[in-house]
Amino acid sequence: MADKTRLIVEGGDPAADPKAFRRALGSFPTGVSIITTPGLDAPAGVTANSFASVSLDPPLVLWSIAHTSRSHAAFRQSAHFAINILADDQVGVSQAFASASYDKFSLVDWHRGGTGSPLIDNALAYFDCVCEARHEGGDHTIMIGRVIEFGRSEGSPLAFSQGRYGITLDHPEVAAKARDRKFEEPGLDELPFLSLIAKAHYKEDADLEERRSAARYTQVGSKVLAGLYQSAPLTADELARRMYLDRREVDDSLNEFLADGHVAIFDGHRFALTESGKQRRRQMIEYLSRYQDEQLADINPADLIVATRVLKAFLTGPHQGKPDLHI
Amino acid sequence: MADKTRLIVEGGDPAADPKAFRRALGSFPTGVSIITTPGLDAPAGVTANSFASVSLDPPLVLWSIAHTSRSHAAFRQSAHFAINILADDQVGVSQAFASASYDKFSLVDWHRGGTGSPLIDNALAYFDCVCEARHEGGDHTIMIGRVIEFGRSEGSPLAFSQGRYGITLDHPEVAAKARDRKFEEPGLDELPFLSLIAKAHYKEDADLEERRSAARYTQVGSKVLAGLYQSAPLTADELARRMYLDRREVDDSLNEFLADGHVAIFDGHRFALTESGKQRRRQMIEYLSRYQDEQLADINPADLIVATRVLKAFLTGPHQGKPDLHI
Repeated sequence: MADKTRLIVEGGDPAADPKAFRRALGSFPTGVSIITTPGLDAPAGVTANSFASVSLDPPLVLWSIAHTSRSHAAFRQSAHFAINILADDQVGVSQAFASASYDKFSLVDWHRGGTGSPLIDNALAYFDCVCEARHEGGDHTIMIGRVIEFGRSEGSPLAFSQGRYGITLDHPEVAAKARDRKFEEPGLDELPFLSLIAKAHYKEDADLEERRSAARYTQVGSKVLAGLYQSAPLTADELARRMYLDRREVDDSLNEFLADGHVAIFDGHRFALTESGKQRRRQMIEYLSRYQDEQLADINPADLIVATRVLKAFLTGPHQGKPDLHI
Repeated sequence: MADKTRLIVEGGDPAADPKAFRRALGSFPTGVSIITTPGLDAPAGVTANSFASVSLDPPLVLWSIAHTSRSHAAFRQSAHFAINILADDQVGVSQAFASASYDKFSLVDWHRGGTGSPLIDNALAYFDCVCEARHEGGDHTIMIGRVIEFGRSEGSPLAFSQGRYGITLDHPEVAAKARDRKFEEPGLDELPFLSLIAKAHYKEDADLEERRSAARYTQVGSKVLAGLYQSAPLTADELARRMYLDRREVDDSLNEFLADGHVAIFDGHRFALTESGKQRRRQMIEYLSRYQDEQLADINPADLIVATRVLKAFLTGPHQGKPDLHI
């Protein structure tokens, strides 16, 4: 199998470097789920990416909750919980339930499922469960649910990967196979325009990732630098929300930038770039911009103006409105 | 939160429709892992997407194995296993270990980790574990591992979502924020060319998904139709491999197409499109091609030729070779 040679960048004993261990765990992409329970007085809910399917017959699923979670008691005391799988337009819902807010349920639309657990409106799927078993797993409790009722909608899931929110797309190799008119492996000359756009984006994404990595900007670090552009200092929570990042990864990154002098702290909890941080951010932006300049260097400037116009026209859509569905 | 209204397309009691239940479980995207164990005579390994992190202190992870798996005994008997998180160029490795092949380890490069479990070369991350506990979970056994040693490489993960292999990309909203020079919400006029490509691809992907859904082609079904283009009939395994699909989803889809008369079976295990299947495939392709025609209808044909030329030039890359790294 012709895969790329990769060097281990960090590793060893997890106890020796828990942050590096967490980053390694983050290499496994997941969806994002909101787990809810009716609670004793009021419903409780948390954002979790530890959901996994277990068994089809009987229908079992699992997830884990930290002992330190404010909602741990509510989930331990309840015989029911529901799992809501979020769609790609529900980052806001994920962030609401990941926060320390006391009125999470006032921030989203929801209704009660058959077991009384809250179901988030417009989620991609839900699993209404009876709690079948709980197993202690270190600093977390593993909750096993027997699914009493489920529902699935059409749409695309929200993803979480390497410390940040994302989306999933068809693998570029099969996307090309499925989309091309001829369903052969075509040369570039035969590709229809929309496949060219997809291929160009995949290439761009891979190239930029390679550059970022070669320049030793971590994925989260580069987004933290990018996110701290405002003159007014931001809290770690605001930064994580703005840049769709995991709060713990933001904390790690801010601590590194504080140690390097690239970030300064205000009022004990707000962060802004120092002069050296601004310079580092400028370097990063220039470095990435240079990629575009280099890639487009051989292209006739007049052609580039036309291509830009075409992409903008595509983005603003055809003017005759939505096409009819004929099949 | 302004999320889209979604209708439940299937659901209810999981026991009444296990296939629909499995599709709902597939709404939660995951990474892809190869789990290996030294075994008694020879190493064993399986492809699993049920991996989840459990605890940081102590460092625990989990995954589940079906009782019916040929490797179940090997994993029950061993005190050790290793989890290998695959990168986006390792679809072939995933398919090798998901197969019934008896010589999976001859198909990939690997070496032994500290506990004796095989580690797949060039995986994105690995976790070398002592088996800490096993819990029965319906038709699967949940395996809890204590991580003795781990490693992480730079790169992008392989993803599995809605029955097919994919990749993860930054969420379009934050990708725009992180990439734009000005780090404000820019109008289309201010976007640099590469951001336009990314935005155009996101729009195309969302539009095509909406069309596919409106035309009631399932995601896997449309790929099965697309994959059966050869005149020679394909086995379900070959089809799953060719189109990067989950084998069980391919089976479900083939059974539906058999019932509808769109697919015929040869030698008891090879499938090809019937005349009505070919027609349905043609309809699908025409329907998707019409999207491109409609989207590009208002664009000057001469401009489109130029834009196509520019995208091809971008895809073949600049001719001065790789740029130097200056920072």
